[in-house]
Amino acid sequence: MPRYKLVIEYDGSPYRGWQRQPDAPTVQGAIEAAVTRFSGEAARLTCAGRTDAGVHATHQVAHLDLARDWRTDTVRDALNAHLHPQPVSVLAAEIVAEDFDARHSALRRHYRYRILDRRSPTALTRGRVWQVPWALDPVLMHAAARRLLGHHDFTAFRAAECQAKSPMRTLDRLDVARERFGFFDEIVVAASARSFLHHQVRAMVGTLMLAGSGRLSADDVADILASKVKTRCGPLAPACGLTFVGVDYPKK
Amino acid sequence: MPRYKLVIEYDGSPYRGWQRQPDAPTVQGAIEAAVTRFSGEAARLTCAGRTDAGVHATHQVAHLDLARDWRTDTVRDALNAHLHPQPVSVLAAEIVAEDFDARHSALRRHYRYRILDRRSPTALTRGRVWQVPWALDPVLMHAAARRLLGHHDFTAFRAAECQAKSPMRTLDRLDVARERFGFFDEIVVAASARSFLHHQVRAMVGTLMLAGSGRLSADDVADILASKVKTRCGPLAPACGLTFVGVDYPKK
Repeated sequence: MPRYKLVIEYDGSPYRGWQRQPDAPTVQGAIEAAVTRFSGEAARLTCAGRTDAGVHATHQVAHLDLARDWRTDTVRDALNAHLHPQPVSVLAAEIVAEDFDARHSALRRHYRYRILDRRSPTALTRGRVWQVPWALDPVLMHAAARRLLGHHDFTAFRAAECQAKSPMRTLDRLDVARERFGFFDEIVVAASARSFLHHQVRAMVGTLMLAGSGRLSADDVADILASKVKTRCGPLAPACGLTFVGVDYPKK
Repeated sequence: MPRYKLVIEYDGSPYRGWQRQPDAPTVQGAIEAAVTRFSGEAARLTCAGRTDAGVHATHQVAHLDLARDWRTDTVRDALNAHLHPQPVSVLAAEIVAEDFDARHSALRRHYRYRILDRRSPTALTRGRVWQVPWALDPVLMHAAARRLLGHHDFTAFRAAECQAKSPMRTLDRLDVARERFGFFDEIVVAASARSFLHHQVRAMVGTLMLAGSGRLSADDVADILASKVKTRCGPLAPACGLTFVGVDYPKK
């Protein structure tokens, strides 16, 4: 029973997140339905990072087992044909060892968060960015972000409904820069860690937004982390600005 | 009667192009309706580049005359409030000399055309790129593009319905490169000229696509230009990949 690894891109806007739900459109549900229509099998997908409602992915990774040894190009093209016209696209399929697990084998997850800091509404990047209607200072944001790097108790940046056993996480990267994103001048927050708590990236970004607005200093942000008090962090940044952009696995 | 210059961003997808039409949604019609709701005046806009249906803009420029001397921030914010929720956004408004004409004062127009050359459908950039389901070689495309630079009769790349008096145009820039466009690896064609014939950019891009596919050489592209025969150029690249990104005016 071969195991397939899929690389998946999706627009999270129309979905109630990755994880299958009985009566709501989800990314997992859409792909599993396409698998069934293609292969006749009721295969179950396991992904590297279960994204929330409205969160996008350019490089989600999932695995599934199928009875038959299909050509990988056939798997990719057939899934895309059955997913059409939904905004979910299988970029690549490959056969992997049966001990590969998209979730448990993952060494590091990578997210990017896009902020458009300008007064006028966005016309061309709706549902892709958080629009903050004043100018943010990415240098202040980056300085504050550095205070969150490393191994900490991230309780202050954790959703009430987070199911992780421990609030300890190791944040490997949290870089903030103004980037020319296509035609647009945006602020991009790049976050990497082995794993994140539920809502951790969005809560950190909301807090960094206050730092970029001059309303919190880098010391304040360090204090919020140390306080382990959820109500002290900034607003939860909206889901639409967040994109899951990659995952690292051990070299084969 | 002060003259206002507006910088405008829009998603062209829902519009039948820039130019006002009696019974179809257009960008000009949307903004003029917002002007009327804001000021009570039936002002008429003149823009730098009348885009076709489905073509986007990050930096369209238009002028209009209003009876009253409004604060420019008020003009911008009021128009955006009345445009909401349409995907048209006024990025800036300023008062200009009465001899400024968004169309006739323009020295050079700039367009960008985005191509996503991969087999899997796009999930996150729908309506923003031309998806070509095979790999293109941007080096071949750029070499072919260089043969179109300069002052030529561009009849081969002109729409049947083009109303320009002369088919002579001077193409100042036509660069092709693979770019990291946000998260995506895309091919971007950057085109600049004082003015373009109707459909010229899209016809040139369709022809360059064939060059990037190895189906036309740079010499073939030069021959097509020299032939002045419309039917010899490549397919008309779809409108959704094209964005009007800027316009140059004389220094004040």
